[in-house]
Amino acid sequence: DSSLKVFTLNSNPKLAEEIAANIGVELGKSSVTKFSDGEIQINIEESIRGCDVYVVQSTCEPGNQHIMELLIMIDALKRASAKSINIVMPYYGYARQDRKARAREPITAKLVADLLQTAGASRVITLDLHAPQIQGFFDIPVDQLVGVPILSSYWSKKGLDDIVVVSPDHGGVTRARNLADRLKAPIAIIDKRRPRPNVAEVMNIVGNIEGKTAILIDDIIDTAGTITIGANALIESGATGVYACCTHPVLSGPAIERIANSQIKELVVTNSIPLKEEKLIDKITQLSVAPLISEAIIRVHERQSVSILFD
Amino acid sequence: DSSLKVFTLNSNPKLAEEIAANIGVELGKSSVTKFSDGEIQINIEESIRGCDVYVVQSTCEPGNQHIMELLIMIDALKRASAKSINIVMPYYGYARQDRKARAREPITAKLVADLLQTAGASRVITLDLHAPQIQGFFDIPVDQLVGVPILSSYWSKKGLDDIVVVSPDHGGVTRARNLADRLKAPIAIIDKRRPRPNVAEVMNIVGNIEGKTAILIDDIIDTAGTITIGANALIESGATGVYACCTHPVLSGPAIERIANSQIKELVVTNSIPLKEEKLIDKITQLSVAPLISEAIIRVHERQSVSILFD
Ligand SMILES: Nc1ncnc2c1ncn2[C@@H]1O[C@H](COP(=O)(O)O)[C@@H](O)[C@H]1O
Ligand SMILES: Nc1ncnc2c1ncn2[C@@H]1O[C@H](COP(=O)(O)O)[C@@H](O)[C@H]1O
Repeated sequence: DSSLKVFTLNSNPKLAEEIAANIGVELGKSSVTKFSDGEIQINIEESIRGCDVYVVQSTCEPGNQHIMELLIMIDALKRASAKSINIVMPYYGYARQDRKARAREPITAKLVADLLQTAGASRVITLDLHAPQIQGFFDIPVDQLVGVPILSSYWSKKGLDDIVVVSPDHGGVTRARNLADRLKAPIAIIDKRRPRPNVAEVMNIVGNIEGKTAILIDDIIDTAGTITIGANALIESGATGVYACCTHPVLSGPAIERIANSQIKELVVTNSIPLKEEKLIDKITQLSVAPLISEAIIRVHERQSVSILFD
Repeated sequence: DSSLKVFTLNSNPKLAEEIAANIGVELGKSSVTKFSDGEIQINIEESIRGCDVYVVQSTCEPGNQHIMELLIMIDALKRASAKSINIVMPYYGYARQDRKARAREPITAKLVADLLQTAGASRVITLDLHAPQIQGFFDIPVDQLVGVPILSSYWSKKGLDDIVVVSPDHGGVTRARNLADRLKAPIAIIDKRRPRPNVAEVMNIVGNIEGKTAILIDDIIDTAGTITIGANALIESGATGVYACCTHPVLSGPAIERIANSQIKELVVTNSIPLKEEKLIDKITQLSVAPLISEAIIRVHERQSVSILFD
């Protein structure tokens, strides 16, 4: 059987280390640096001829830099005769640009899929795509892993009483339902609507949250507007406490300040995107997706079904 | 005939303005901004359905950002039914990564060509590629314009006496010959070689420079090591004064300091890469490539030969 190599780029070096350790291999030797003018210089420092190579890279901020690193790495691996080039992308950047919401918009999520394939990717292993339709943007296999079981185990162990799982918008109800089933809890939905144009949004909570502990769940928390406004609305409507969780902690702009000042007692996230020092505030708990991803890599490499990891 | 539109991205907005003015059109309306997490957001604010669109973008520093802007713009134009998407790329970034100089290196110049085509580019108009072979990396038409005539006109008008055109290395002799022919001057070559490994390079000047005014010419000046060391060597070997010129002023890292402190009296460059305020030192003269590029665009649009502009 051909040998398995794991390489990291600059987005998630610690996660890649964890994955390699779980699998029982050393991280592949390579350096990813910059020339004086900022162009990316990649050196792969060991032979990978005939190997199944797994490259760990989330296309989180700085996303454009991380995308280019990944494309150039794929190019180098291809020219160095890798047998397969498997992209492990825990966070798929540009996933929210997945349709033409307005005239003359790009569909950057599709562009990124095309670019990865053009560079030479053979497969993508990813986690909680913002829209599952993005799988269809690829003509190569895409394994989409699911973060809910990891979040759910955490909440189970924590043992909160009388909980209700809350979706912060209509788009996330399926995800909330999934978490609620695992926690044997009911769900509620924050139902925002604008009665007339140019009139403030009204927040209406569908479902019973009175006297309960709410757990908000989303896939991505970016500027944290939705989640913190939602948390306040839940408390105003009678929830006794609010917790929150998501798979992808983008946490850009005012996010950390908003979370720090919000009614949210604890925010649980995964390490699909690593958190810089200044984002690691007390309220935030980060869970590792390394065990899940390592298992997926081993199963892919041994030609076993990965779908067992999907729920 | 279908109408011609010129759009700019963020690398060369002033050059794009000049080009549009020369052609006699308004710059296309669009905005290229960033979401909170740094992802690029492009809005094309006028219909371009059925139009021949020219997008001006050099992939100079920050090169990865500029490449992604360009790819996303091409995607948006394609989906908005442009008739043709013509990339005007005065400076082609990553051109120095054009071959496997060592094992397991990427060929990023080819990757960029593939990415542009995958996104949907119909044609590329560029200037002084670091290696002309890069034209062959594309399966779409590439028009490569030449900067020497612009530099040559400047030196002719300046009217220096008893000049010799000097190539700073072997790779640039053809370019030096071209400039020398236009200026009716002889050429010389700075011939570096390392007598044995781990021994300092020896600079030998091939050709007669004694008592002459030297004009150094290169395609790219990046950290300016080659050109400033070359200038010093010329003075030491008896040149009475040294001038320098290049098409692409990358000028990264120590470049400006080196040029300021060097024997170079004046450095003449083009605006294929715009110079930030802090790089606009007295010694540097910047010439516009807008007339050349405008002429090329008009000729392409009117289906006339562009080769007349190649010399
Ligand atoms: N990086 C981003 N940050 C914020 N909004 C984005 C980003 N990328 C895309 N969008 C917008 O988010 C919307 C899609 O989000 P959603 O409705 O949650 O699928 C689209 O209207 C996009 O224009
Ligand atoms: N952005 C860059 N800055 C400095 N050197 C580079 C850059 N890109 C590629 N190179 C190196 O420059 C060499 C090619 O330059 P040249 O010999 O002038 O064609 C190759 O060995 C590359 O590794």
